[in-house]
Amino acid sequence: MKKKLGILIAKIVGYIFYDKKYFKGRYFESSSTGWNFILKCFFEQKILGKNRNAGFPVNGNSVLYNPNKVHFHIDDLNNFQSFGCYFQNFSGDIYIGKGTYIAPNVGIITSNHDLMNLDNHYPGEDVVLGENCWIGMNSVILPGVTLGNNTIVAAGSVVTKSFIEGSYIIGGSPAKIIRKINKNSH
Amino acid sequence: MKKKLGILIAKIVGYIFYDKKYFKGRYFESSSTGWNFILKCFFEQKILGKNRNAGFPVNGNSVLYNPNKVHFHIDDLNNFQSFGCYFQNFSGDIYIGKGTYIAPNVGIITSNHDLMNLDNHYPGEDVVLGENCWIGMNSVILPGVTLGNNTIVAAGSVVTKSFIEGSYIIGGSPAKIIRKINKNSH
Amino acid sequence: MKKKLGILIAKIVGYIFYDKKYFKGRYFESSSTGWNFILKCFFEQKILGKNRNAGFPVNGNSVLYNPNKVHFHIDDLNNFQSFGCYFQNFSGDIYIGKGTYIAPNVGIITSNHDLMNLDNHYPGEDVVLGENCWIGMNSVILPGVTLGNNTIVAAGSVVTKSFIEGSYIIGGSPAKIIRKINKNSH
Repeated sequence: MKKKLGILIAKIVGYIFYDKKYFKGRYFESSSTGWNFILKCFFEQKILGKNRNAGFPVNGNSVLYNPNKVHFHIDDLNNFQSFGCYFQNFSGDIYIGKGTYIAPNVGIITSNHDLMNLDNHYPGEDVVLGENCWIGMNSVILPGVTLGNNTIVAAGSVVTKSFIEGSYIIGGSPAKIIRKINKNSH
Repeated sequence: MKKKLGILIAKIVGYIFYDKKYFKGRYFESSSTGWNFILKCFFEQKILGKNRNAGFPVNGNSVLYNPNKVHFHIDDLNNFQSFGCYFQNFSGDIYIGKGTYIAPNVGIITSNHDLMNLDNHYPGEDVVLGENCWIGMNSVILPGVTLGNNTIVAAGSVVTKSFIEGSYIIGGSPAKIIRKINKNSH
Repeated sequence: MKKKLGILIAKIVGYIFYDKKYFKGRYFESSSTGWNFILKCFFEQKILGKNRNAGFPVNGNSVLYNPNKVHFHIDDLNNFQSFGCYFQNFSGDIYIGKGTYIAPNVGIITSNHDLMNLDNHYPGEDVVLGENCWIGMNSVILPGVTLGNNTIVAAGSVVTKSFIEGSYIIGGSPAKIIRKINKNSH
């Protein structure tokens, strides 16, 4: 009963403040989790204005600069419920492959400060995460990085260059290959 | 006067929304700090629903998955006031020894994603922190790790294996022994 | 129109709850960004009480212990809008040189726990950041550290000692020199 009331409130709020094109996929159609996302995000996002311009729920403890420059599958709305994340895409675009998981406190950066004048930024370079990647907690992905499908980034890593081939566990600062993932054996 | 009013509000809110069995120990009996915890946590926790199911105050900027699977001493309620922390215990249990301090942005993980299918998780493995440990800011403790009493984890570490003996400073990614702590000399 | 209303609300709130001596510099005089800082911070800071004692806007997802012990230029109010940051200055002072940028999830620590009794802290040691430094995301600066002008701290670093000369990129844990910055070439 209480749960039904919560979903009713979320639906009212959702249709007023969010973009209904996002109300599909596994979090809205196969479950009611998506409405819970809205219940938890609504106040900070639409009243306090944290990530207000996003049409989908974004955790008020994360920052998504430009919701038009992040490209993701509707089934991966969970990534914007992670806390402490910084989707720094005011300049470059961020591409998140289907089935990729982004842990808390992760930074995805598309533009660094200009070392000659920190008030400026270098031109943005897109960050492209392949499908079925997992970016471990407290990691940072730097501008221009592309990660192939099934790349696992260990917690606490700083990824400074691309690992295009995929199916690798990478980690450390700067991130290096730890081992190949063999999908057949285990 | 203003402070007294705050504590009065905290007590009313506390007895309605929290579990009174937690209103003891050094933060409630030796000081009024515990009521301040409630004042700061209440809105996000009980209204917005961030960590709502916990009977004790938990910072809305941290995530505690399952309050029934974290085991701690009542004098250590401060650890749930840290921000940016991820008590990921939907699967395994987290044991926090008495007198242990957990800094901000720390992850304590009991179950990793299944590398063969990231939508699933591996079976949980408990994380056990001994007494009088200190987990430095921005560190991550991985599933199955046990740390002996008086273990110090340097800031920014990723702890991938157990250090059972205790009285060591460990650090880095993966964390290694930095030095032994000698409690007699200094 | 909507924006003007927002600024009007921010000004009313600002003059009631904040210290008007901070309403100057590039965020208040050259733009209206400062009022947006107040709109985003006000509820958590002045109603929920997160960093309430600061007279300037501080992000509710960061913690600034003692606003009287952090010294900064009025044009650098942006650093207190970063999220996940820990200005741990209940003991030592934090000095932030003009033009320095502090990224999200950064810790600036002036006093460690006493290893012989974690309930106590060692005497504070000031942290001094020079001008035009950039402290990368998820980094931690430890007590007593001084960084010279134009020091760049790579993301995910732990800075354990001073780098006084300036114009260096440092990184890793513990942070080491990566390379000298040559302001003439590039």
